[in-house]
Order: sequence, then structure tokens, then C-alpha cells
Amino acid sequence: MSSDTNQEAREQLIDLAAEFYEQFEGGEIPSMTLPTRTKSNIEYDEDKGVWVYGDRTSTRSANSVRGARKLLRAVYTIEFLADQLEEDRSSTLRELYYLSESWDNDNAQFNDQDESNQLIEDLEIVSEVTREDFHMRPEESGAKVMGPLHIREQTNRGERDIHCQLDVGQGGYQIPNNPDTIEFLDNDADFVLCVETGGMRDRLVENGFDADYDALIVHLGGQPARATRRLIRRLHDELELPVTVFADGDPWSYRIYGSVAYGSIKSAHLSEYLATPEAKYIGIQPADIVEYDLPTDPLSDSDINALESELSDPRFQTDYWEEQIELQLEIGKKAEQQSLAARGLDFVTDTYLPERLEAMGVL
Amino acid sequence: MSSDTNQEAREQLIDLAAEFYEQFEGGEIPSMTLPTRTKSNIEYDEDKGVWVYGDRTSTRSANSVRGARKLLRAVYTIEFLADQLEEDRSSTLRELYYLSESWDNDNAQFNDQDESNQLIEDLEIVSEVTREDFHMRPEESGAKVMGPLHIREQTNRGERDIHCQLDVGQGGYQIPNNPDTIEFLDNDADFVLCVETGGMRDRLVENGFDADYDALIVHLGGQPARATRRLIRRLHDELELPVTVFADGDPWSYRIYGSVAYGSIKSAHLSEYLATPEAKYIGIQPADIVEYDLPTDPLSDSDINALESELSDPRFQTDYWEEQIELQLEIGKKAEQQSLAARGLDFVTDTYLPERLEAMGVL
Repeated sequence: MSSDTNQEAREQLIDLAAEFYEQFEGGEIPSMTLPTRTKSNIEYDEDKGVWVYGDRTSTRSANSVRGARKLLRAVYTIEFLADQLEEDRSSTLRELYYLSESWDNDNAQFNDQDESNQLIEDLEIVSEVTREDFHMRPEESGAKVMGPLHIREQTNRGERDIHCQLDVGQGGYQIPNNPDTIEFLDNDADFVLCVETGGMRDRLVENGFDADYDALIVHLGGQPARATRRLIRRLHDELELPVTVFADGDPWSYRIYGSVAYGSIKSAHLSEYLATPEAKYIGIQPADIVEYDLPTDPLSDSDINALESELSDPRFQTDYWEEQIELQLEIGKKAEQQSLAARGLDFVTDTYLPERLEAMGVL
Repeated sequence: MSSDTNQEAREQLIDLAAEFYEQFEGGEIPSMTLPTRTKSNIEYDEDKGVWVYGDRTSTRSANSVRGARKLLRAVYTIEFLADQLEEDRSSTLRELYYLSESWDNDNAQFNDQDESNQLIEDLEIVSEVTREDFHMRPEESGAKVMGPLHIREQTNRGERDIHCQLDVGQGGYQIPNNPDTIEFLDNDADFVLCVETGGMRDRLVENGFDADYDALIVHLGGQPARATRRLIRRLHDELELPVTVFADGDPWSYRIYGSVAYGSIKSAHLSEYLATPEAKYIGIQPADIVEYDLPTDPLSDSDINALESELSDPRFQTDYWEEQIELQLEIGKKAEQQSLAARGLDFVTDTYLPERLEAMGVL
């Protein structure tokens, strides 16, 4: 991270604390106002193409012991974060929770990690600085990238120039916790292919799909980490690459697609930073199950519930998704991406992906 | 993989198939004999220092329809694996299961993935060739390494020379699915430090512990993948490095230590290949909870059951483990590795690890 970014994040935090101070001085009860974070307060921002919080707000005020304690914790946490930025260090959410045990005021200590996690999210929203810029690291690490991309990463031991095909092993380039430390130097990529499972990612790398099609293969590893989603967004914005998502053909995988494309309700304040609304779903589509006659499993009751809940989710209310989800409910089946192996190990790279990418206008 | 290894694995497999053929020719009912894979048939091999299968065996014979079907599947799978090795390709266990749908004999097809997984394990045991040498890739990827180690990896696009501090980002070097493709070129390492959680791994890397103490930091990421365990064993055997395991202070983490040091019942045929019996447990030890006055959580009922089951596990019947587990049952508490942050973010690298490593005779 550049020290400019550190300085900026620090100032935003100190401004917040200053606001409490001014409220006190003006004889007001200190308080902090936040958007209400529920499904009913999410709306589509036409300009930005992402889902953001609506106008409803909630207030945390010091007019109750509980509220006062929350603001006290916020002040202690702001001090900790400001020091951390000053020293150019970082920590995990879990460390923050434990660290609070060393604070001199018992009332400022967190009772459980939910409290500290929630406070960090509140501070993100109010200060408009992301957690990464506070130098709070997640527990979950980002996934890995393979493809024709040359990057420069600013590590805490200096710069590293890495080509994501030539300078890495079969496992690829490991995305750091904060992908904003990455600068894109050069690339020959035509598009980004996000892949849900490790087995399929390895198949594509073994078959040389990244080299043959100039694809950046980004492994999602199930529900993608923030670092992975942030990198995908940057690849789309800065390198102007189309983004595609290749996952299993079941409702849980559509949610994985959704987290890449739309973001989540919990982090709607970060949609602009993490979500890539132009991301397209390659498959496995319910239509593929029929067209390619894939080996399937029957839908379970929880699969059916999840599909029905997606039908009523505003983010899935497009002609495409309604048609696919209704087809899936009708055939009552789901299929995994690796089921394409029933047509041979090369079917996915020789036939399926080229056909789908062409149909989608990416190739 | 060198083509010599491929050739050897192929011959072992074909010898297996030849055996069935000879049994047929000699008028015998074909069969395959395997060690019984239960807790009661595990014994300690004093010479090798690992837990292996005992003398009890089970036989899969073609004298029933079910048995005959199993052998038919084995023959089809052997043919697939032999072809795969001939072409120097690889596949996942999941792909094998789906691929069987394309086989011309319906009786050879697997009904579920448990069947194909189990068959591959059977073939590993009978042929004494590891799954990796059959070129069967796991779904789970190996974890990552940071430290003074220079390696050469044989990827399917040629050799890559990588220094695990200088040539990698903050995320480190990603262990490939088959770490036997790695050659150790050079190193300045004094010991291996395996770390359970991502948050603690990142703390050690940020604090430069690998550089200050010439440590190879290997992230385990919970229960370690085969690739990670294999690499640890090779670092110990080939580079003669002491191996230490740093995990949370609860029974589930002692099992993680156990899988590094002792292997598992399911893969006792691989103990010599995957387990590092000399691996030592750094902590968090129950004694540390008392000595360093760490923030704790109370033991749950399932924690207590797991501790009691460890007390009766032959692999944990040492003075050290009995003392620690009894102490933990007595204090009724557990602590996470990140709880050391209650003493400050540098406590783990400045105080705790140096003290523990010195007490263990590693430093």
C-alpha cells in the first residue's frame, strides 16, 4: 500500500472520531447513522449497475448504555486502526477481537467476534474506506490465477514482478489478501474465466486452455473471497476484459455467480468495489443438462427451495435466469461441471467452452 | 513426472491385470487380497516409525455378482489409468467417476463416487503405487509455502525455478497437486513451521518470521491436503529439517497435528509416504493456556468426547499427550492460536515461538 492511501484512510477515521467530539462539545448525545442493512433496503443503482443500500437508516446513539458501549468500542477501534496505518502494519479481524482484551477499559472490549466484525463493517460504511484500506486482513485467502498476465505486487518485503504463466508453478499465482497491492504491467488476455471447482481449474490448466484461448483462469474455490472478487472487478475495469463464470449447474452455484456479479446484501456498500455486474454466466446451465445429456443428480428439497428463493430475488429477475431456473425446476435435475468428463476429458476445452463462449459473443 | 516413473506405475498396474488373467487361465476364480482397513488392524512399525496395516486381510473375489462387478470395474479402471500414464495426462477422482459413464459395459460403471474412490485406494494398496503416480489429482489443492527455499517444479509447460521468498507474492508459493514434481535446489532453512490458520500464517509472514528465523512457513489450512503432507515429509527426509506444527489448542487441532505426524487409518498404506513421525507439536498446548493466561472458550461436550477418544487412541499414548490432554480436561478450556494477539501483535513472533522452539530444542 502506498503511504498516501494509508494517510487518507487514517484521516477519514480520525474525522469520524472528531465528529463524536464535536457532538459532545455542542451538547449533543453522540451518535452514528448507518443505512439499514436488510433485503428490503437494497436497490438497483442504474448508473453504476450495481445493487446498493436504499435511503432507510438506523442510528447508533449513546443515549443507552448499550449504544454508548458501541460508540466507546468504535473509538478504541479507530485509535487502533489509526496506529496500525501509521506503522504500516495489518491484522486480522480475529486478532482485533483478541487484541481488545488488552485495552485498558473493560467496557471497550468485545464480547464476541460478531461484535468486532460488525463494527468494522459499520466503520467501512460510515468512513467510505474499505476494510482492506484499514489494513484488516480476512482469514480466508484469495484464490489463484493462471494466464497471460504480468503483474507487479507490492509485498511487505519489496516489489515482485510475476508473470502468471511463466513465473509460477502448476498451482498458479496466489492472490494476496489485498489485491490492490497489485499493478497490472502487461497482458495478452482476451477474457477472464472464473472457475468454481479446483478439479475443473486443474483440468483447464492441464489442457492448456489459458494458453490456447488467451484466458485468465481465476479459481473461485466455492464462494469467492473478497480478494478474489476485487481482483476480478479490477481485471474487468482496468484491462477491459469480459468476465465469465463457469460453475456447477445448481442453485448454490448460481449464488456463487451472483456474488461475483451482484455482490451480497451484507456488503452492498462495497458493490462498486467488489461486484462485476457485466460478468456473464457460462454454465453449467439447465439448458446444457438437456442439450449435452449430462449425468445428473435429482434436485433435493433444499435445492428446490433455493431455486424458488432465487426466482423471487430481484437480482435474478431477468428473462435469462427466469427461463433457466424454471427449466431446472421442470426437469428436476442438477449437474456438476466435472460431469462433462462423461464425454471425455477434452470435451470441456475442445467443445463445450468454445461453443458456449461463441454463443455468448466472448470468442 | 519423468516418463520412467510413468512407465513403472503402468507396469505395476498391468501386472495386476495380468494376475487376474493368470487366475482365469489356471481355472481359479479371480480375486484380489487387501489388508483389512479398520482401527483394530493398525499397528506401529518400530523400524519405520509409522503406523501401518497389520496382518488381517479381506478378499474381493468374483465368486459373487457383486464381487465380479468390482473386479470388472478394477480392470476397466486399470485400462484407463494405463492409457492416462501412456499419454502423460492426469485426471481427478471425480472425473474418473463421471468418465465411467462413457465405458461400453454398463456393469463396469460406478454407481457413486465412493465406489471409484475406494477402488483407487484398493489399487494403491495392491500395486504399491501412489495415487499421485497414477496421475489421479485430488480436488483439494495443497497449501502454500513461504521461506528460504529454492525449488524447481516440473510443470506440464516446462520447468520453473522459484525461490519461495524472492519470486513469490505475499501469498507465497502454491504447492502443486503432486509435490513429487518439485526438486529442492538450495535452501537456507533451519526448520519447518506448519501453521493451521490463514490468519496466523499471514501474521508470521508480515512479521518476517521466516526471514528472521530461517523458517519454512507451510500453511496447513485446516486438515492438510495430501500434497501438503507429502511436501512436509520430503522437506524432513531430503533436507533433514526438523518439522514443527503450530495449531489451535483444541482436540481438532491435535488431530491436524496427528495427520501430519501419524497419518490416518484410511491411508495407513501411505504412512511412509505422507507421515512425518518426527514432527513436533509447538502448541497452543493446554500448558500454554495456563502459562500465558490466554483468552479461552469453555470446552463443549463434543470437545470433551474428542479429547477422551484421543486418550484411548494408540497414537496419542505418550507421556506428553496424556499429560496435556488430562490438563485440558481439568481446566475445561481451549484457546485459538490467534488468541496470542491479546498480548500484542508481535508477542507470537517475539516471545511465544522463540520460547517454545528453544524449549523443544529446535532453536
